[in-house]
Amino acid sequence: MKNVKVIIWGLGAMGGGMADLLLKKKGVDIVGVAGRGAKIGKSMYDYIQTERGDRPDVLIGAPEDVIKEGAADVVLCCTDSFVKTAFDRLRFVLERKINVVSSAEEMAYPKAQSPQEAAELDRIAKENGVSIVGTGINPGLIMDLLVVTMTGCCEEVEHIVSRRVNSLSPFGPAVMEEQGIGITKEEFLDGVKTGKLSGHVGFHESIHMIADAIGWDVEKVTQSMDPIMTDVDRKSPYGFAKAGNVAGCAMKGQGYVDGELKIEMDHPQQIEPEQVGVQTGDYVIIKGTPNINMVNSPEVPGGIGTIAMCVNMIPHIINARPGLHTMIDLPVPRVIMGDMRDMICEEAKIVK
Amino acid sequence: MKNVKVIIWGLGAMGGGMADLLLKKKGVDIVGVAGRGAKIGKSMYDYIQTERGDRPDVLIGAPEDVIKEGAADVVLCCTDSFVKTAFDRLRFVLERKINVVSSAEEMAYPKAQSPQEAAELDRIAKENGVSIVGTGINPGLIMDLLVVTMTGCCEEVEHIVSRRVNSLSPFGPAVMEEQGIGITKEEFLDGVKTGKLSGHVGFHESIHMIADAIGWDVEKVTQSMDPIMTDVDRKSPYGFAKAGNVAGCAMKGQGYVDGELKIEMDHPQQIEPEQVGVQTGDYVIIKGTPNINMVNSPEVPGGIGTIAMCVNMIPHIINARPGLHTMIDLPVPRVIMGDMRDMICEEAKIVK
Ligand SMILES: NC(=O)c1ccc[n+]([C@@H]2O[C@H](COP(=O)([O-])OP(=O)(O)OC[C@H]3O[C@@H](n4cnc5c(N)ncnc54)[C@H](OP(=O)(O)O)[C@@H]3O)[C@@H](O)[C@H]2O)c1
Ligand SMILES: NC(=O)c1ccc[n+]([C@@H]2O[C@H](COP(=O)([O-])OP(=O)(O)OC[C@H]3O[C@@H](n4cnc5c(N)ncnc54)[C@H](OP(=O)(O)O)[C@@H]3O)[C@@H](O)[C@H]2O)c1
Repeated sequence: MKNVKVIIWGLGAMGGGMADLLLKKKGVDIVGVAGRGAKIGKSMYDYIQTERGDRPDVLIGAPEDVIKEGAADVVLCCTDSFVKTAFDRLRFVLERKINVVSSAEEMAYPKAQSPQEAAELDRIAKENGVSIVGTGINPGLIMDLLVVTMTGCCEEVEHIVSRRVNSLSPFGPAVMEEQGIGITKEEFLDGVKTGKLSGHVGFHESIHMIADAIGWDVEKVTQSMDPIMTDVDRKSPYGFAKAGNVAGCAMKGQGYVDGELKIEMDHPQQIEPEQVGVQTGDYVIIKGTPNINMVNSPEVPGGIGTIAMCVNMIPHIINARPGLHTMIDLPVPRVIMGDMRDMICEEAKIVK
Repeated sequence: MKNVKVIIWGLGAMGGGMADLLLKKKGVDIVGVAGRGAKIGKSMYDYIQTERGDRPDVLIGAPEDVIKEGAADVVLCCTDSFVKTAFDRLRFVLERKINVVSSAEEMAYPKAQSPQEAAELDRIAKENGVSIVGTGINPGLIMDLLVVTMTGCCEEVEHIVSRRVNSLSPFGPAVMEEQGIGITKEEFLDGVKTGKLSGHVGFHESIHMIADAIGWDVEKVTQSMDPIMTDVDRKSPYGFAKAGNVAGCAMKGQGYVDGELKIEMDHPQQIEPEQVGVQTGDYVIIKGTPNINMVNSPEVPGGIGTIAMCVNMIPHIINARPGLHTMIDLPVPRVIMGDMRDMICEEAKIVK
């Protein structure tokens, strides 16, 4: 079998990390990178951490020059957060009869907020005999798929709390800005009102994924976003919060079933949590038969986790039946320690 | 769609618990129970906790009288631990063109120790257009599927420790005897030598499941079994260990890859662990990128967990493509809080 052929669309923090990871794996080649603007014509190796060495070069090209029928088995789309903005790009790939893994948060469960687009993507994928899935660390695993998996050993579930307490310190300037690090409380509240501060995207997706998986009919999803103020100066590589200012963003989400609050999402993110004694971690707390009281501490880092999840889902999405998939209808993700080709069904391979 | 129709073969602790659980769920009926000996002709309700009330009676029958083509969508086989002893019963069901969920520990990954029988079951299932899977709490979820799932957010994995520290107090006389509760150290060591003490069955299955999932080639699996001696008298509903005698059984398993110890299983089981300050829990400890350090404490109880896993896999095995499946090639398990029929594909239903 020929190596698995991968194209990356969007060589930012995630796409670049996926390139570095793929270069370490056996049985898989990066055959193209799609970008825009000044990146076009440059070498992929100018933007990632791995040295080119004696590998053949990979030049970044415009999407229409790189993504062509028969060119690859899968495109990793790492350009967007939202279904509506990603839609045209995802369609472009599917119409070229190539499978897609998307890192867009809303693509983890697109029918939660964009049912029409989700149905369209499903139709287009099926029409072209390929498949598409959205994944990442969260949404994608920690606050949803892991919760669903743990309900698997329950006879009954009454209430779910999914909590992710994480550090923003490893992230760059864009995230510092999106989360309001270093600004005042007033600026934060204003940013929430105007939509300038985006915070975490994914509660709608995680809540609907869990509810649909276990058979709860969610009638309402709400969410809130509060500043985490700091009493001490906190400094991370790309962020600084003076005492009295914002060091993070506490998001909460609620899913209601039959008028009752059944699914709670609790996701406080801040720089330098250790400095104020906050222990980070991922929690799955299920009230049911039996109760589940699970914690992974410290939390799975968001960047590495998302890079790994997207790469690790490549074999699953190549093998999947045509159409739009989600993490709850595919087999569980798993690290790829052997040759990626050993995980691929011959019939499902595009580049023979 | 007609309700999902289920037959239970082996109305013991597990099969009986599955009956109780199924009677609480929507969109599913127990249409038969297969048993032997004195149970034949008796009512299922004589052996389970649920009161019959005004439900139609279900009489326990001989397998050949109960398990007939078209009689059910799935048979829950809860009679065995080993592939070789379960084989004829599993074949019997498959040849009657009915799907199977088996609680036999070795069926969680039958090719680990019985590759020929596994291939046979796959062939027979395909020939008859139905599917079969083995599951349970462990093997089935805690020490294997959950580990695989957590590797999904890893770029690389170097070493895995899967630990389950659990209480045997809820279990009955059979388990007390199998695990050597209350006997002397000499009797225990003798029981290990003669094979009289079985201990936990499943390390071969869990280790091979993890290794195959992530692409490690396991060349050797070893295991050991040591007595847990108690310094104080310990008493559980069905067990008693005098100070100086055996209060439990500590099993360890090792999987080697390229001559290196890569997968460790650590599974100490004892009565009344709280009495000596042992905190029970399920642990997934992965050395990799990133590290995973997960615990669910207290542990998922083995009985409830197995009952739930087998029932919760019913829709997945009805929907699956024909053949022998394992937990790593099906979607994740999930509690069934809605109508079970909502989870079933029309085309896959046997009793239309
Ligand atoms: N589900 C999860 O858990 C999860 C976790 C992490 C990230 N994400 C999401 O994944 C996406 C990528 O994250 P990131 O950290 O890699 O963001 P990033 O560093 O901003 O990278 C985005 C990349 O996409 C490129 N891009 C954007 N629009 C494009 C277009 N029209 N044509 C070609 N390239 C385009 C950008 O190119 P330029 O450099 O030319 O602008 C950039 O290289 C984000 O939306 C993020 O929110 C999800
Ligand atoms: N994977 C896991 O995590 C997991 C967890 C729990 C249990 N298990 C396994 O699942 C199996 C069932 O467990 P359990 O606790 O329910 O055991 P159990 O209480 O001993 O029940 C076994 C039942 O099977 C019946 N049976 C055995 N052979 C039969 C035959 N030839 N024909 C008809 N009925 C037969 C027995 O009938 P009689 O009453 O007439 O003898 C009994 O009702 C065990 O092998 C156990 O090790 C696995």
